Amino acid sequence: MELYVERGFERTTVAEIAERAEVTERTFFRHFADKREVLFSGSEALRDLLIERVADAPKTATPIHAVRTALEAAGAVIQERGEWSRRRQAVIAANAELRERELIKLASLATALAEALRQRDVKEPAASLTAEVGISAFKVAFERWVQQPSRRNLPRLIRESIDQLRAVAAGE
Amino acid sequence: MELYVERGFERTTVAEIAERAEVTERTFFRHFADKREVLFSGSEALRDLLIERVADAPKTATPIHAVRTALEAAGAVIQERGEWSRRRQAVIAANAELRERELIKLASLATALAEALRQRDVKEPAASLTAEVGISAFKVAFERWVQQPSRRNLPRLIRESIDQLRAVAAGE
Repeated sequence: MELYVERGFERTTVAEIAERAEVTERTFFRHFADKREVLFSGSEALRDLLIERVADAPKTATPIHAVRTALEAAGAVIQERGEWSRRRQAVIAANAELRERELIKLASLATALAEALRQRDVKEPAASLTAEVGISAFKVAFERWVQQPSRRNLPRLIRESIDQLRAVAAGE
Repeated sequence: MELYVERGFERTTVAEIAERAEVTERTFFRHFADKREVLFSGSEALRDLLIERVADAPKTATPIHAVRTALEAAGAVIQERGEWSRRRQAVIAANAELRERELIKLASLATALAEALRQRDVKEPAASLTAEVGISAFKVAFERWVQQPSRRNLPRLIRESIDQLRAVAAGE
């Protein structure tokens, strides 16, 4: 990650990453399929966390609240990685291919959330709509978090963003 | 487009497209940068339409209503192309690279909508949030339209989808 920030993603080789991490290239490739994977290896864990939290939400929770709880939990994980998450975002923002990959990741998280909602007997199109707008609110909150030097609490920004959906949708 | 449906996007060459369209390859490349462009050449017109409609919405229109009006207008354009739009979607759905490109297109439409809302003095993060959830609702409506053999009216599906945001956000 340091190398990506120093030199840019394109100009960093796997050999250099391995050297910096004091591992062999072979070890690198045992952990990551390619150098993009260094940045996206957490995606599956994040998806599993979202699915789990939606499934575990109380039966009385409305779909949007189940999604909010799940995304706040994801926000807490990202917040914990703090500086790493911000650096990662800077590297991604500087590279079109990585920005695309990030969009795909978000789209797949929305797909996973929609499926988790359907498991709770939420019907279509409400399940997809709730999942998609939840991810939209997450995206906006995440961008605010990355940009704000004051480093506000990410789970709280996510909660605010989802709560603000109500005013937005009501046309206030 | 016929060729993409018949053979798949990967297996279609520019030479074949040009032949089917009865133009030379040179003419093809005067109109399109590459064969992907055949599928995405309408993106800019769509973006311009969204910006224009948001700008032209009555001053009394709330942000979400300005966005709804704009997306309904975009839906009407897509609906007009009817069969072409559905075939295009089938080609895109079958190819990972094209699905990514479609996600990028939607993200850039959301960025354009957010900027158009800021021009109407909508503050951040409300502008980005409204734009992102509007595009989310559009995406869900579009998928329903593509899947439903009954070929329902796309602008109406978009309107329903955006109106449903209110119930989703309120946790109903």
